[in-house]
Amino acid sequence: MNEFALIDRYFRRAPRDASVQIGIGDDGAVIRPASGVDIVVSVDMLVEGRHFLRDADPRRLGHKTLAVNLSDMAAMGATPRYALLAGALPDAQHEWLAAFAAGLFALADRYGVDLIGGDTTKGARNLCVTILGELPHGTALTRRGAKAGDDIYVSGTLGDAALALAVLRQRTTLDADALISAQTRLEAPEPRVSLGDRLRQIASAAIDISDGLTGDLAHVLEASGVGADVDVVSIPRSRAMSEKLASSERDLALHCLLAGGDDYELCFTANPALRDRIVAIGRALNVPVTTIGTITAPRDFVVRDEAGKPLAALPQAFDHFAA
Amino acid sequence: MNEFALIDRYFRRAPRDASVQIGIGDDGAVIRPASGVDIVVSVDMLVEGRHFLRDADPRRLGHKTLAVNLSDMAAMGATPRYALLAGALPDAQHEWLAAFAAGLFALADRYGVDLIGGDTTKGARNLCVTILGELPHGTALTRRGAKAGDDIYVSGTLGDAALALAVLRQRTTLDADALISAQTRLEAPEPRVSLGDRLRQIASAAIDISDGLTGDLAHVLEASGVGADVDVVSIPRSRAMSEKLASSERDLALHCLLAGGDDYELCFTANPALRDRIVAIGRALNVPVTTIGTITAPRDFVVRDEAGKPLAALPQAFDHFAA
Repeated sequence: MNEFALIDRYFRRAPRDASVQIGIGDDGAVIRPASGVDIVVSVDMLVEGRHFLRDADPRRLGHKTLAVNLSDMAAMGATPRYALLAGALPDAQHEWLAAFAAGLFALADRYGVDLIGGDTTKGARNLCVTILGELPHGTALTRRGAKAGDDIYVSGTLGDAALALAVLRQRTTLDADALISAQTRLEAPEPRVSLGDRLRQIASAAIDISDGLTGDLAHVLEASGVGADVDVVSIPRSRAMSEKLASSERDLALHCLLAGGDDYELCFTANPALRDRIVAIGRALNVPVTTIGTITAPRDFVVRDEAGKPLAALPQAFDHFAA
Repeated sequence: MNEFALIDRYFRRAPRDASVQIGIGDDGAVIRPASGVDIVVSVDMLVEGRHFLRDADPRRLGHKTLAVNLSDMAAMGATPRYALLAGALPDAQHEWLAAFAAGLFALADRYGVDLIGGDTTKGARNLCVTILGELPHGTALTRRGAKAGDDIYVSGTLGDAALALAVLRQRTTLDADALISAQTRLEAPEPRVSLGDRLRQIASAAIDISDGLTGDLAHVLEASGVGADVDVVSIPRSRAMSEKLASSERDLALHCLLAGGDDYELCFTANPALRDRIVAIGRALNVPVTTIGTITAPRDFVVRDEAGKPLAALPQAFDHFAA
């Protein structure tokens, strides 16, 4: 099967949306933006051995490849619309491709995203999705608007994906149920698209937590020119994480919670006057939203332990060139 | 140097264009499309060892990484506007990165393209550019409009890039001057953006020749539901290619000319009544445009040798999963 037949068989579908003038199958896709919208665009590259394991379940990998991009749209408050997939693969394994495409399209269908372009080539497995979304003019959520006195929120719970990875790397153990749950967080994260959509013109700043809370919140602080005071005790976590934090493996657990990465939750800030509205949004969407601290004028990033004492050093965010 | 510092140092520049609301440095870039435009988007992935050699000159590689994407915009008749670069690199080599960025930005500057986003990660070297362009509503050049009786054109000359690659792989030789010239075609192709721009509403169909003339023209024929009758003798070629075709290495040369790939010239079709206008456009842009054959109603693809006799078999286009 050649490259073009492969694209045809697994990835070419008639676009559902009338805004797609030309989809897969030409030198470029053509879309017609609605009037009054800004286009939001982002790209993420997933590399085997780095972002996913060689034996990763292909259906879940198809889901995750798109999910990490949808999460970027969520962080901008954008409605995802179109995706392009470029992939290097060591070979054209039909079973793998069919499962990967099924996972990717299942998620795309849920969010009304059309796959409008791509490129396939032979090489070390590498998956690169470009996502395009839209939102009303000038309403994008950015990292820049956090103000002293704002509440700091996170959605969902943090650290479970990293905990699952630690188990897969045999650095810790979890009981069967907790592992299944944590591994779902790692392998099939749920992007917070609806939450991001509802936070437009409410949140003062937002980011998605892909590299870990402390590293990603630090980007918001830097972009906004502010500091933060965060309490570890208030960071939402699973029961498994709570147990690890209370155990002899506290250091590993704390690292997962604060800097594990792969959470794909939203971290956002908002004026305290909006607290009730934000709680209501979380309830309406059935997405937990939790206040974890406060934005401060001094540009220090303080994370306090359970006794209120600042941690001596913040765990580092995941750095792709550090290892 | 961590991932974010690396992006900052080599790839973050203030966008020049006012349509860029948010550039590199958030979860997504935000652009504001002008009214009346369609957005054209395309992605290309270049893999070390497949699309470029490990010791490829990094400045030229930066140029080529963007050029192959600009070539897709040219084939659609779109004005390129924004690019996103995702890259896996085995390490953060400063000299290599500085040269790569210099080559990429030199070409981006010539075409007024802003780099608005990206992603860097550690891994086998892989470069993935997403390009966005624009054109007036409904004016995109596609592969679908070729009609029986249309002339078939190509820009520039074909086959030199493949000839250079054959020399690098020690399958043939070229004298020093011819090699420099052919290697420039391979390593620093010039996308035909201005030509594509001028061909909107003139060409009936267009494609860029990335995988080789016969394979790429076959895509146009298939999409348009037509055939073609092409004369080898009329396909434009360099002096070095002419000499190879007249030598004992004719088979290799003919393969390079017809199916070598990496040409990044445009192949397009147009009604014969437009011949004078097309010649004038080529002259005005100083880009050679040459008629190489005719679109036919029967869906056969005939390529005739110098004696007018159809070739028994067409050389195959480059297939990423065949080797």
